[in-house]
Amino acid sequence: MKRRDFFKTAGISAAGAAAATLATPAIAQGGTTWRMVTTWPKNFPGLGVGAQRLADRITAASGGELTIQVFAAGEMVPGLQALDAVIDGSAEMSHGAAYYWQNKSQGLAFFTGVPYGMTSRELTAWVRFLGGQEIWDEIYDQFGVQGFLSGDTGTQAGGWFRNELTGVSDIEGLRFRTPGLGGQVWQKLGASVTNLAAGEIFQALQSGTLDAAEFVGPYNDLALGFYQIAKNYYFPSFIEPGLATELVVDKAKYQALPENLQAIIRDCCQAEYDNVAADFAANDPRALETLINEHDVTIRQFPEEILQAGAEAARELLMEIREGGDPLTKKTAESFISALNLTRQKTEGTDMLFLRARDQYFSLD
Amino acid sequence: MKRRDFFKTAGISAAGAAAATLATPAIAQGGTTWRMVTTWPKNFPGLGVGAQRLADRITAASGGELTIQVFAAGEMVPGLQALDAVIDGSAEMSHGAAYYWQNKSQGLAFFTGVPYGMTSRELTAWVRFLGGQEIWDEIYDQFGVQGFLSGDTGTQAGGWFRNELTGVSDIEGLRFRTPGLGGQVWQKLGASVTNLAAGEIFQALQSGTLDAAEFVGPYNDLALGFYQIAKNYYFPSFIEPGLATELVVDKAKYQALPENLQAIIRDCCQAEYDNVAADFAANDPRALETLINEHDVTIRQFPEEILQAGAEAARELLMEIREGGDPLTKKTAESFISALNLTRQKTEGTDMLFLRARDQYFSLD
Repeated sequence: MKRRDFFKTAGISAAGAAAATLATPAIAQGGTTWRMVTTWPKNFPGLGVGAQRLADRITAASGGELTIQVFAAGEMVPGLQALDAVIDGSAEMSHGAAYYWQNKSQGLAFFTGVPYGMTSRELTAWVRFLGGQEIWDEIYDQFGVQGFLSGDTGTQAGGWFRNELTGVSDIEGLRFRTPGLGGQVWQKLGASVTNLAAGEIFQALQSGTLDAAEFVGPYNDLALGFYQIAKNYYFPSFIEPGLATELVVDKAKYQALPENLQAIIRDCCQAEYDNVAADFAANDPRALETLINEHDVTIRQFPEEILQAGAEAARELLMEIREGGDPLTKKTAESFISALNLTRQKTEGTDMLFLRARDQYFSLD
Repeated sequence: MKRRDFFKTAGISAAGAAAATLATPAIAQGGTTWRMVTTWPKNFPGLGVGAQRLADRITAASGGELTIQVFAAGEMVPGLQALDAVIDGSAEMSHGAAYYWQNKSQGLAFFTGVPYGMTSRELTAWVRFLGGQEIWDEIYDQFGVQGFLSGDTGTQAGGWFRNELTGVSDIEGLRFRTPGLGGQVWQKLGASVTNLAAGEIFQALQSGTLDAAEFVGPYNDLALGFYQIAKNYYFPSFIEPGLATELVVDKAKYQALPENLQAIIRDCCQAEYDNVAADFAANDPRALETLINEHDVTIRQFPEEILQAGAEAARELLMEIREGGDPLTKKTAESFISALNLTRQKTEGTDMLFLRARDQYFSLD
C-alpha cells in the first residue's frame, strides 16, 4: 500500500488504547517502597508513560512486597541527574536512556541507539543472546548499578525542516537541534548542531534560531507543535534506528532483594520493552495521520546523497569511538558491531525483503 | 552490506547464548503446581525452549507460590490435543500456536500469523494497543480459556525446494509441505499441498514424495536436515511474516489466582514474547551461516511473479475468511486488517526505508 492511500482508509478507533492500562496496583502492606526517578516529563507519551506502567507492573506482580513510587524529571532531581541519584543512594531506581550518561562511560551510548546501528529487535538480540548484557553489566559495575532494557521507540523520524533538503550542500551551516552521536554525524555533514531541551525547541524554531529540529517521532513530536513552523517532516531517521530506554537499579540493594523480587523486576522490564515498542508501533502512525490530515505536514524522504554521506559519517564516528576509546568502550563497540553484522543478515535478508514485497504487491481495505 | 560478504566477516561466538539461561527455579514449598502441556517436541529450538523458559520464569517470579511443570508433546497428551487438555481440565495451561485450533474458531489463525499479514511488532501493537486482545478473549471465552502471546519467530524462511523456481508455472503440481493458511495460498498458486508432522518431512523429501517443504527458519530447519536433499533455500516467507506462540490458561482457575500471580503470568508471557523473538533474531543468522558454509545451501529469493501472485492469493483468501466466516471471525478479520493498515505505515514508511538505506550504504567490519 502506498502512503498516499493510507490515511484515507485506516479507520482505527482510539478505543483499543485502553487495553494497555494495567490495574491500579495494590497498596503495599508492610512491604518495601523504592523510589524511581526518571528523565521524562510527567505523562510523556510512550516513554514517561512506560516508566509509570513499569512501576505499576512491579508493584502489582510483587503483591505489594515491593511498591515503586515514580518521580518525573524535576520532581526529586532534574532529569539529567537521575542516574546520580541512584549512585548517591537518594533513589533506588532510575528510568531513562543510557546515552544520557556517555560522559561517565562512552560505551553506554551503544545501549540506547547508534547512527546506522541496530533496530530495536537487533538490540534485544544483542543484549539478551549475544553478550550485550554482560558488557553493559561490566560498564555499570563501575558505578555500583545495573541496567535493564525497559522500552524502545523503534525507528524514529528524521526531523522537521523549514526548507526542503535537495542534497548534502543544503546541510552546510544548517542550524539543527539533534543531540548525541546523531548530532556528531550531522556535524560531519556540515550542520551547525545544537542541543536544546524539549521545551525550548519550539521557541527556537519560531524565532529563527533553528532551521530544523529532530526529537523522537510523530507520537511525541505532535504534542510539541513543530508542525506549526517547519512543514517538512523527514523519514526515516538514519541516526536513531531505535532508541532504547533503561531501568537502572542500585546493584547492592537489588541483589539484597529476595530472588523472586529480582526476577519480577527483570521480567517486568522485558515485558515493558515489548510494550513500549508496541505502543510506538500503534501510536506513531496515528499521530502521523493527524499531522498530515489536520496540520498539512509534508512527508519527505532524505535524498540518497544525504543517506549515503550519513552512512559514511556514521562509519567514521563508530571507528573513532572503537579505536579512540578506553578498553571497555572498545570492547563494547566491537561486540556491538559483531552482533550488528550477524543480526542484520536476518533483518535485511528476510524482514526487509518481506516488507518490500508487501509494500509493492499487497493491499486490502 | 550484501549477503555475499556477510558470512565471511561475522565472527560471533556462541558464548553469548548462555546469557539467556535463567536460574533454576526454586522448589515450591506449599505452593500450587500447574501443568503446562505443549505442542512442541522436547528442547525444540526457540519455541519448546521458550515454553520451558516461560515456565521457569513464572516459577521463579512467584517465589514458589506457583510452580509450572512442563510436558512436551506426547508426554501427557499429543501436541495437537494440548488445548483440549486445558478445556477438559487435565492441564491448567497449554503452550502452542493459536492457528492449530482453527477448527474450533477460524479467527484464531489471526493470532499466530497470516499470509502477507503482520510482522511480530505489528502483531504485538494490534494485540496490546489496537483491540486485538479483547477480540481474542471473546473467541477463547467460548471455551473457558484465555490466551496470551508468548513468543514469535519473526519472519520465516520460504522453504526448501529441490529445484529452482523460475516463475508461477513451476508451482503447478509442486508437491509442497506447508500447512495452514499459507498452504491455502500455495494451493491457489497451483501447488499440491500436504501437511506432514515435523518428523516425517525429511523422509518424504528423500523418497521423492515431496518436491519442497517449508517449516520455520534456519534455527529450526538446520536440525531437521532438509539441506541434505533440497539445496535451494528461499527467502522470505510471504505466508509467515511472523509466527506467534501463545500461552493458554484455564480462565476460571486463572481468575481464582491471587492478583499478583495473575500479573506474573501476564508479565512473564510478554517478557518471553520479546525473548523468543530475540532468540530467533540472534540464532537464525547463525544457523544460516552453518547451512551456507558447511552444507553448501544456495540462498534464493522468490521471483517477483511469485511474490505478486502470492499477494493476490493471500488477498483473496483473507477476503473469503472475512466475508464467509461466522460473525466473530468477520470481526477478527476486520480488526486485524484495520490494525495492519495502520501499523504498516510505520513498518513500511520508516523501518523499511531505514533498512534499505543501511543495506545499501553502511558497512563496518
